[in-house]
Amino acid sequence: MDAHSPTRYDPSTFKALTFHDVTSAFADGSDTPRNYLERCLKTIAEREPIVKAFPAINEPGARAAADESTQRWKDGNPLSPIDGLPIGIKDLLETKDMPTQMGCDAYIGNFPKRDNAAVWALREAGAVIVAKTVTAELGGSHPGPTTNPFDPARTPGGSSSGSAAAVAARMLPTAIGTQVGGSIIRPAAYCGNVALKPSQGGINRGERQATSMSTHGVHAGCIEDMWITAIEIAKRAGGDRGYPGLVGPSAAPSATRPTRLLVLEGDGWKILDDASKSAFKALLSNLSDAGVEILRRGDNPAYEDLESAVEGAGSICSAVTSWENRWAQRNLVNENPNGVSERAQTILAKAEAMTPDNYRAALLERAKAQIHHNSVAPFADAIISLSCPGPAPLQPRDEPGKPLAPRPTGDAIFNYPSSMLFAPAVTMPLLGVGGLPVGVQVVGQQGEDARMTGIARWILENVAPVSVD
Amino acid sequence: MDAHSPTRYDPSTFKALTFHDVTSAFADGSDTPRNYLERCLKTIAEREPIVKAFPAINEPGARAAADESTQRWKDGNPLSPIDGLPIGIKDLLETKDMPTQMGCDAYIGNFPKRDNAAVWALREAGAVIVAKTVTAELGGSHPGPTTNPFDPARTPGGSSSGSAAAVAARMLPTAIGTQVGGSIIRPAAYCGNVALKPSQGGINRGERQATSMSTHGVHAGCIEDMWITAIEIAKRAGGDRGYPGLVGPSAAPSATRPTRLLVLEGDGWKILDDASKSAFKALLSNLSDAGVEILRRGDNPAYEDLESAVEGAGSICSAVTSWENRWAQRNLVNENPNGVSERAQTILAKAEAMTPDNYRAALLERAKAQIHHNSVAPFADAIISLSCPGPAPLQPRDEPGKPLAPRPTGDAIFNYPSSMLFAPAVTMPLLGVGGLPVGVQVVGQQGEDARMTGIARWILENVAPVSVD
Repeated sequence: MDAHSPTRYDPSTFKALTFHDVTSAFADGSDTPRNYLERCLKTIAEREPIVKAFPAINEPGARAAADESTQRWKDGNPLSPIDGLPIGIKDLLETKDMPTQMGCDAYIGNFPKRDNAAVWALREAGAVIVAKTVTAELGGSHPGPTTNPFDPARTPGGSSSGSAAAVAARMLPTAIGTQVGGSIIRPAAYCGNVALKPSQGGINRGERQATSMSTHGVHAGCIEDMWITAIEIAKRAGGDRGYPGLVGPSAAPSATRPTRLLVLEGDGWKILDDASKSAFKALLSNLSDAGVEILRRGDNPAYEDLESAVEGAGSICSAVTSWENRWAQRNLVNENPNGVSERAQTILAKAEAMTPDNYRAALLERAKAQIHHNSVAPFADAIISLSCPGPAPLQPRDEPGKPLAPRPTGDAIFNYPSSMLFAPAVTMPLLGVGGLPVGVQVVGQQGEDARMTGIARWILENVAPVSVD
Repeated sequence: MDAHSPTRYDPSTFKALTFHDVTSAFADGSDTPRNYLERCLKTIAEREPIVKAFPAINEPGARAAADESTQRWKDGNPLSPIDGLPIGIKDLLETKDMPTQMGCDAYIGNFPKRDNAAVWALREAGAVIVAKTVTAELGGSHPGPTTNPFDPARTPGGSSSGSAAAVAARMLPTAIGTQVGGSIIRPAAYCGNVALKPSQGGINRGERQATSMSTHGVHAGCIEDMWITAIEIAKRAGGDRGYPGLVGPSAAPSATRPTRLLVLEGDGWKILDDASKSAFKALLSNLSDAGVEILRRGDNPAYEDLESAVEGAGSICSAVTSWENRWAQRNLVNENPNGVSERAQTILAKAEAMTPDNYRAALLERAKAQIHHNSVAPFADAIISLSCPGPAPLQPRDEPGKPLAPRPTGDAIFNYPSSMLFAPAVTMPLLGVGGLPVGVQVVGQQGEDARMTGIARWILENVAPVSVD
């Protein structure tokens, strides 16, 4: 392919890079982790000049780790099902062998020789840490250089831009992302990945304790790789401080047919383009045909109450997060007045105009929404909604002296609800709209990560994806 | 006094340094914040050579801040009731004008030019940041150089050693401490301070997000100064991420007579010396005489259930905290193999032998204890208990090749319950045992910080303290 031109994406034909299905070949010696890694590095050499997913790559370190893994598989002693798995780490998380620059000028050259708890767990499980992946500045909205693998004129989404793009470009089978508002699920949806945004606290964030609603999650080419990566981390590093953390089987949970799925429209539905709307409706028909009852907001007052509770979710999430980041960002700006973007400075100014009472009001809205979410649990096995408002938008260009382009990494409008609900979300690459990926997500009650994974697996295995122009 | 010799402490005669009662003199010009500070600096010059509370003092910065405050009072525009308040900051919290060395060799010379959120709030309120105060290494149990102001052969307690000692020695009227297991209330109790360990999340911890049960709190010479310091921080920086934070009046809450107080014995009662036990019993009699009904564990099965739920609180707190500190401490040891104490390395080894399931079990015990605590709310206005197991012990000496002295900063056995319950605790200097201070605390339901302060105020104003030999 010509990497400069758009590729037409079709969810029914696109083949993502997968890992879980090669380990039997590692076991019988017909393939090796080193060979798998070399195939990744070959793809990286081809795709990375345009996709620009990686601020740092550690080829020698990855090769050494892959060789050790190769030996373990040869000896019949792999450390885990992900022994030998090449993986990228979002550049907000510390890695002892690569810099941690957070997409932020103030952190250029920042190189603590430390492993984030999740990175430590991945190494303990035998995973091969290949690269850091581009993050929008400090996990916010100021974009990095990454392009969408299906159209380099478009954003891959953010803030886990590099993680989503690396998987979509088949450069790596998996990558770690983080989400506060919509930073895992949205880029995964724009890039045709499978991804898990766990329940709040599901995966140990280590030193990344910035906010009360941030999570580590996994981008992958398939549901099996997504799950085994997440659970192998949690087996070793557990969940976040104060949380039990992700629990579930070592292999991906079995496919589970949901009986009833509740469509959550949220604020996103109001701004959705017609093509994406019709693709989603067609998918709901396919689900119906497969025997799943689809619940709509008018069917029960509890559903309308939930819709009301997540109205303005974006404002609530922004208030919570900008307040919580306020002191760290003020210190950063004081130390490096030119080290952060105008976008970040604008958000800081808004945070510094807030009072504790403003923050308390946002927390209260968040808590009320969680209660309304819990109240639909008896009726629906999961929420289903789009994962992004249509295909990835064109990359905007900021022009000096003009107002900043809004939402340069796309709109998290379909992601704020699950973030503020602390709810597990799994996005599935089920739609193609105008030749670009659009994701659909299932969202469960807190702690239902394995259950959502099983439902997503069933949908991916049993329900035909939809393409529209 | 000769600072080298023990001073006999009597709770009914000891006069602590106070601040709230001088601000009217600031307002009428008969005293100034600069003069107040100079008196503190004079006491520091006298007492600090023996007490050793401060790893860093910023005299020029404090004088400049006090002069600005003096001007504001002169202009009739103080920023808050604590404008001009000299305060010490535990050396775990970052301060832009002094190093942050955390009592740990690995952090010698560490000097980020940043203010912790609470420090920022104190400056915004006009407080005068005078010094950093000694912490036991990394907030753990390996002691710093600080001595008990009432007997230099004894520990001031830890980990907020310098904060407690600075207030007890009348070097500063207030100081910020932090508590995970017993690091605010215990040293305050050994030093005859008033102190608040807030409800979990009560005061914004800023960058100090290490564990799920750490808090910032206030050491002071009187209940009024304790409260106004805490509330002025919370008014500006709010609570911790995800918490509403401390709420209450700008002046200290009115004295409130409790109707019923429940004695919580906990594991501490079993190891308590007879003198402290008889002093506490005499205090309970004084409370009874003042019309407060004293509830005991045998009076109601709910009280026995709470006692059972906090049995082994020390092990539960240690499991939670050492697991949560595990990755940060491993990275620190990797970077600085000789930079942390043998005590810290021993705790790290225990943490690294834990599994996520061990941690989950400890979380579950903690959660169950919180439910049992809540179940006594209808019966008792507060829990009352000792704040420490008798007077401060003699400073032990570690000898090479021999096992480390256990609990060199004293035993947090009376503090683990309120820590794991996320409950507000206010310690009061109500007992003298053998000429040394022993504190008594009231402990409320989560969020009842102002209510506990009002109850403590009533007790301090209405109930005679007790001295025994």
